[in-house]
Amino acid sequence: MRVAIIGCGQLARMLALSGISQGITFSFLADSSLVDKGEAVDVSCVDGLGTIVTFKPEFTGKQLFELLQKPDVITFEKEQVNIADIESLNAYCKILPSLDALSVCQCRRREKEFLQDNDIPTARYVFINSPEKLLTCMEGFTTPVYIKSIRQGYDGKNQWRASNATALSAIPADVVSDGVIVEEAIPYIKEVSLVSARSQTGQIKHYPITENVHKNSILIHSMAPEQDMSRSLREAAQEYMQRILETLDYVGVMAMELFVTADGILVNELAPRVHNSGHWTQNGAVTCQFENHIRAVTGQVLGSTEIHGFAGMMNILGTEACQDRALTEHSKFHWYNKAHKLGRKLGHVNFVCHSYSGLKAMMNEYQ
Amino acid sequence: MRVAIIGCGQLARMLALSGISQGITFSFLADSSLVDKGEAVDVSCVDGLGTIVTFKPEFTGKQLFELLQKPDVITFEKEQVNIADIESLNAYCKILPSLDALSVCQCRRREKEFLQDNDIPTARYVFINSPEKLLTCMEGFTTPVYIKSIRQGYDGKNQWRASNATALSAIPADVVSDGVIVEEAIPYIKEVSLVSARSQTGQIKHYPITENVHKNSILIHSMAPEQDMSRSLREAAQEYMQRILETLDYVGVMAMELFVTADGILVNELAPRVHNSGHWTQNGAVTCQFENHIRAVTGQVLGSTEIHGFAGMMNILGTEACQDRALTEHSKFHWYNKAHKLGRKLGHVNFVCHSYSGLKAMMNEYQ
Repeated sequence: MRVAIIGCGQLARMLALSGISQGITFSFLADSSLVDKGEAVDVSCVDGLGTIVTFKPEFTGKQLFELLQKPDVITFEKEQVNIADIESLNAYCKILPSLDALSVCQCRRREKEFLQDNDIPTARYVFINSPEKLLTCMEGFTTPVYIKSIRQGYDGKNQWRASNATALSAIPADVVSDGVIVEEAIPYIKEVSLVSARSQTGQIKHYPITENVHKNSILIHSMAPEQDMSRSLREAAQEYMQRILETLDYVGVMAMELFVTADGILVNELAPRVHNSGHWTQNGAVTCQFENHIRAVTGQVLGSTEIHGFAGMMNILGTEACQDRALTEHSKFHWYNKAHKLGRKLGHVNFVCHSYSGLKAMMNEYQ
Repeated sequence: MRVAIIGCGQLARMLALSGISQGITFSFLADSSLVDKGEAVDVSCVDGLGTIVTFKPEFTGKQLFELLQKPDVITFEKEQVNIADIESLNAYCKILPSLDALSVCQCRRREKEFLQDNDIPTARYVFINSPEKLLTCMEGFTTPVYIKSIRQGYDGKNQWRASNATALSAIPADVVSDGVIVEEAIPYIKEVSLVSARSQTGQIKHYPITENVHKNSILIHSMAPEQDMSRSLREAAQEYMQRILETLDYVGVMAMELFVTADGILVNELAPRVHNSGHWTQNGAVTCQFENHIRAVTGQVLGSTEIHGFAGMMNILGTEACQDRALTEHSKFHWYNKAHKLGRKLGHVNFVCHSYSGLKAMMNEYQ
């Protein structure tokens, strides 16, 4: 079995590592958009794990399929993919999740509309694509608001928080012209996520809900299972996820970020892929999210998503000292082989424990 | 950090896979003995996981060290290594476990004598190296006895069971001349193993004792923790292991195979490496044996050896149908990418469960 992954980052790396142990072969497609901008494509995360192909617009679908070693299926490590670049591959092998599903999740506007159409609660928002309307549209909201580009949004990139006209004027006019979502700031109690998988036969499995702590919009650590949500809220989240997966006829792992508020839960955003908040599953679940994604796209049954007690994850962000971190008895180290850069996600550490308090103590001690 | 592994089989593969996820780089030394016999060296297990070097007697230590990409440490996936071929590497980097420790465990005679010298009980045996003495020495034993070559013994290779002179005459005279152990057959209740690790600072961690079922001397399945041994027997096994590891100043993972008899435990043999009976740790323990071996030889602290409830492993031996096995919800599949051959270990399947009875049911259902 051969799987091609669009993308060459740490998620592609961990997908491949989870499949290689089962004898699956991988290839990777590197985005040419960085080359276009004059930057080097960093493929160090997947170096040595399979054939790496750098995309060129002149490739035909057949050429690309052959360069990728004629995979049985093509999948993604990221939603920000130029669909026009790869849809010609559809003639040669399966692409899972489907490009239709991907197109919904790669645009904030389409995603929000999709959620609304399916009666899934989100923060109140409007779509704007002219700088003139930005100021007037804010009148309908309690400030602050978030202004988010409809594309290329992850780790807090391409989004702004604004309480007044001065803050709004800092947003590049071309970004607004390309389209932005203006969204009310939610007074949430906590941020959580639900990571789930759906197989080709429609089987769905959910991982326990994870509590996530962000700093400057970048995930710092996760702990699972989340401890405070009522059973009905947890079931509501699973029910939303099921509705999304089935409506999109989705195959693979999806992550749903949620705000828990005093009035219930709201869906913040969807990630049509394995997700940072699911990294704890590598050491804390019977089957990790990476393996379940590979199982799903290769037509296998899903593996058990049961948790081993309590599990957590801490991201290792680029600092001067981060490469000297020692292993400890209770930490499980994952490193991405990336070039060092301040604030960049370079690796993560997982923890597993019998008790929530023990897990907290392990994670506090490690910091 | 770079680690070179002597050997290119499935154990080298799984050692590398456990380290690659942590950003460690690997190289592999393939044995030339097969080439000498006119057979191809099968390196498919580690293909793609690092540089592969085929040993040639004309290599100097420096050349070998450089071909192996100047590793920080060299370790082994097997005890049957020609020590003279690699001891020159000692001048360039650490070799762990030490060649002294390896030399004890690669010869049945030295291993038995070492165990006796350290007051560790074994089956009664004599060493013989002349075919003439074979028949007379049997007089001192209740039949049947086992005759085991002092070298190259694993998976029941180079050993014979004999009850009479006719059976003895089937043993090649040159094998006997090279040296054999004649050993009483132990009326054991069960076969178990203890897998443990020792770090460079002398820290020791034991995995729970595993019960092993063999067929024709090949491991078929393992289950852990073993359910019937008394606490004092378990502690005795750990105490023997500690004595062995400390006496040998051993660094890395070692496995000790034991017979449980009505009168207590006897050590059958030692494996100075990761071991098939420890494969369940990949999915059933906080830190698997492969990671702990890599942690030990790279100078890190050992990871927790705690088990997630109950865990088991089934080997996939080469049969006509074995490659078509489907994944199931509760099975964790590990495949070695080896050429298919009848009876060969091609992969294994791990299982994890909350209860021993549940684990048994999972494993029965899979068969």
